Amino acid sequence: MPYPEESQGFMIDGPEPYADFKKRWFKLKPFEEHDVDVKVEACGICGSDVHTIGGGWGPKNWPLCCGHEIVGTAIRVGAKVTNVKQGQRVGVGAQVYSCGECKQCKNDNETYCPHVLIDTYGSKWPNTGIISQGGYSSHVRAHEHWVFAIPDKLETNVAAPMLCAGITAFSPLVRNGAGPGKKVGIVGMGGIGHLGIAFAKALGAETWAISRTRAKEADARKLGADGFIATSEEGWDTEHRFSFDLIVNCANSSKNFDLARYLSVMDVHGRWVSVGLPEEEGQVIKAQNLIANGVLIGASHLGSRKEMIQMLNLAAEKGVGTWIEAIDINEENLKQAMTRMTKGDVRYRFTLTGFDKAFA
Amino acid sequence: MPYPEESQGFMIDGPEPYADFKKRWFKLKPFEEHDVDVKVEACGICGSDVHTIGGGWGPKNWPLCCGHEIVGTAIRVGAKVTNVKQGQRVGVGAQVYSCGECKQCKNDNETYCPHVLIDTYGSKWPNTGIISQGGYSSHVRAHEHWVFAIPDKLETNVAAPMLCAGITAFSPLVRNGAGPGKKVGIVGMGGIGHLGIAFAKALGAETWAISRTRAKEADARKLGADGFIATSEEGWDTEHRFSFDLIVNCANSSKNFDLARYLSVMDVHGRWVSVGLPEEEGQVIKAQNLIANGVLIGASHLGSRKEMIQMLNLAAEKGVGTWIEAIDINEENLKQAMTRMTKGDVRYRFTLTGFDKAFA
Repeated sequence: MPYPEESQGFMIDGPEPYADFKKRWFKLKPFEEHDVDVKVEACGICGSDVHTIGGGWGPKNWPLCCGHEIVGTAIRVGAKVTNVKQGQRVGVGAQVYSCGECKQCKNDNETYCPHVLIDTYGSKWPNTGIISQGGYSSHVRAHEHWVFAIPDKLETNVAAPMLCAGITAFSPLVRNGAGPGKKVGIVGMGGIGHLGIAFAKALGAETWAISRTRAKEADARKLGADGFIATSEEGWDTEHRFSFDLIVNCANSSKNFDLARYLSVMDVHGRWVSVGLPEEEGQVIKAQNLIANGVLIGASHLGSRKEMIQMLNLAAEKGVGTWIEAIDINEENLKQAMTRMTKGDVRYRFTLTGFDKAFA
Repeated sequence: MPYPEESQGFMIDGPEPYADFKKRWFKLKPFEEHDVDVKVEACGICGSDVHTIGGGWGPKNWPLCCGHEIVGTAIRVGAKVTNVKQGQRVGVGAQVYSCGECKQCKNDNETYCPHVLIDTYGSKWPNTGIISQGGYSSHVRAHEHWVFAIPDKLETNVAAPMLCAGITAFSPLVRNGAGPGKKVGIVGMGGIGHLGIAFAKALGAETWAISRTRAKEADARKLGADGFIATSEEGWDTEHRFSFDLIVNCANSSKNFDLARYLSVMDVHGRWVSVGLPEEEGQVIKAQNLIANGVLIGASHLGSRKEMIQMLNLAAEKGVGTWIEAIDINEENLKQAMTRMTKGDVRYRFTLTGFDKAFA
């Protein structure tokens, strides 16, 4: 067999026992003319993986191999593939397919496709019913639309988390006008948020990091933040009242979150866009809380192929890089990393490495 | 005394006893160089008046004279007034002053001024502490920025409700791109909503009325609606999934309102903008409900002077008119109108008339 029809990865069978990874073979979807096989060389550990593995986002198509911040080598490309060349270094993010035919897909909104939306892991492929599996593995298979050339200047381990964390922060920034003359805030300085700060600055916006305490202030400033707000201090909301054009909320939890207070710092028709999906119940919103400044509240889901390419090029050009802690992929390290992630104990992203060793 | 320093109006002392209007004299703010005195000839009855009078929006600066959909004659203009000529037919809406100096005021966002925002009734004027009083009265006094020439083609009684209901619907339409090629919905066919339908159509949008039942369908189509959705019927959300660019929510109540279902008909990054301020508790929103289409939820407050002028001209040009029931202003009629308003028993706005008789 010249090409793999199966991949080998670290899977779990459900939330219990916690983070009990087991190396197993799993079946890939049948290879089609627009597909690309990627031999994984690095994979970031995303908050989504942690929510999924812990069961916080509810039942999933177990067993699962997580991981959707992938960089590797395109080892096989389908007959009709034009975006990718065999042997090229490429990335795969959190989605591997959409219908490609609808208004949304044709309008650079393919991550919002209402018809077919296949996540990199945990989705059922139409026709075959095979469950998609992620990058804690030897190989992934994706439609070429979702496979992105990595610019030479970006290191593999640093680029990997950009494929999900990076684009998750980048898309709402560019879609909501982050740039010169705009005051932009990033709430929550984790994997997504730290890239949000770096990209907001790279786009030319006046960039503010917004965190509970000042513990991460020095890091925020190194990442490019022009200003820093610690929400545990008095008076920040009064000081910044009616001033932000955009805040991208990257917080992973909505616990004890006084949304009305945050909204009060938005300028008229400013945008409050959430990219996290907290496990807690939502927040009560009254029109009364929105009317003083006519603020708009929204959410954002990944970003288009065009935005992904724009982001990778901007990162290469401006030297934007993920702050990573590289760890070799194996059962023990995965379990430890998951546990540390739930405590926010990483600055600011784990990248899994050593795939050759794990899948020799 | 050549000009009135007091005005006479129908006031109430609080929510109890309900709608117990009493004709009284009240003091106007001191007349200043940019002020205009308007002798009232017609005044719409706004939902705000009903919420205020019934106590649903909480404590107010009692006693109060409501009314902020005013048309009348400018009988006195301050020395520095340039917008209005004495003797001109003019309108006054729900706001009569803002600071005029801040970024928001200079940016056509004067209805969101964070510094000084004086509602037509119930606000305390700086310096004097005099409470502003509305148009259920013989005269109102307003800063010229908030006084608008009424185009000849618009009838006084028909124009009056446009000063609040009209602009409340119009501003979010123009600010969110309602026009040719856009699919726009109006939820709630009352005083604001019926003008929303007419203005959305006048702006060239594909206009849909959205109501619980089909009781108002014929009216909606007369107002210009291209389509009608009855949300008590099955399947409407599936049929219109991912299709609306903008919905202006004019509903006066959020009772039994399944927001997630409404949001599911929005296209990617569509806008759901509420202009009503229901008395009920707000709605729980999770990022999960917003992420499928990246919808933005907002609220809107009145509209700028520029938009008011644009709206009045568009109404004159396209023949947009409020559907009114005219009633003479007196204690009994006011009480009856309030009671009917709480039941939605008017198609679609009361305009008070007969001011000469009431304030002879």
